[in-house]
Amino acid sequence: MFSQTVEYALRALMYLASLDGTPVTSERIAAQTRVPPGYLSKVMRDLVLAGLVASFRGPNGGFVLARRADQITVLDAVNAVDPIRRILKCPLSDPGHANLCPLHRSLDDALAHLEETFRATTLAGVLERGGQGCRGLTGQQKQPENDTHDAA
Amino acid sequence: MFSQTVEYALRALMYLASLDGTPVTSERIAAQTRVPPGYLSKVMRDLVLAGLVASFRGPNGGFVLARRADQITVLDAVNAVDPIRRILKCPLSDPGHANLCPLHRSLDDALAHLEETFRATTLAGVLERGGQGCRGLTGQQKQPENDTHDAA
Repeated sequence: MFSQTVEYALRALMYLASLDGTPVTSERIAAQTRVPPGYLSKVMRDLVLAGLVASFRGPNGGFVLARRADQITVLDAVNAVDPIRRILKCPLSDPGHANLCPLHRSLDDALAHLEETFRATTLAGVLERGGQGCRGLTGQQKQPENDTHDAA
Repeated sequence: MFSQTVEYALRALMYLASLDGTPVTSERIAAQTRVPPGYLSKVMRDLVLAGLVASFRGPNGGFVLARRADQITVLDAVNAVDPIRRILKCPLSDPGHANLCPLHRSLDDALAHLEETFRATTLAGVLERGGQGCRGLTGQQKQPENDTHDAA
């Protein structure tokens, strides 16, 4: 359901959110999040254009979140790179038939709920869910002994 | 979010659900639901394989729902043609790291809710939502005068 582009954008944002404002290079993000560098460049450009990420040039330059992690939602990320397309009119309807039919109303209700969930989920909120973070997405490496508690 | 295949499968199923067991040919379904005939053939094959639709050969043959419309859910339809892929392990996790990280737990929670919604929505339930049905998806043609009540 979620595109590769959304997955990559969220990985990059979560990584930046874990760093508390330290700029990181595109190469570093690509390595840490395991996103192909060319693909990442396009994703980062979209995130900058959407105002979620800022980039600084120069020897200490790189990417940082443009807003606090509690001010960026998963929906912001999704909409920046691959927006949820709500169903505004029935694909089968006649011209001028503006109401959604029951089928497409049901599908759109599900999309509306998904949007609502993602709007209520901030990067900071995801980080706070804590537990065992995905190693690749945080600046801090987790200790391997935690793995012994993993559920099957 | 929803693939073209899911859209087409749901159109075909809703059309069959509106017919109360009268077999209809593939050509008729394609015309009524405006799905390309070749694409529809593949979709109908998947729906038959999943046990949602039965096909009868012969001069009065065609497709019918294999179960009552209140026994077929939107999730059945989705899973028959383009299943929702739950996130079972983190794409970035080390081998043996079975728990989902907070990011992928959040995404999978959203998918779980979507599954739950679609599991609770039957074809009969969608039909019962009534109102102005999408003309292409029901056997009964609606009267055009209803269009004057459409919201903008």
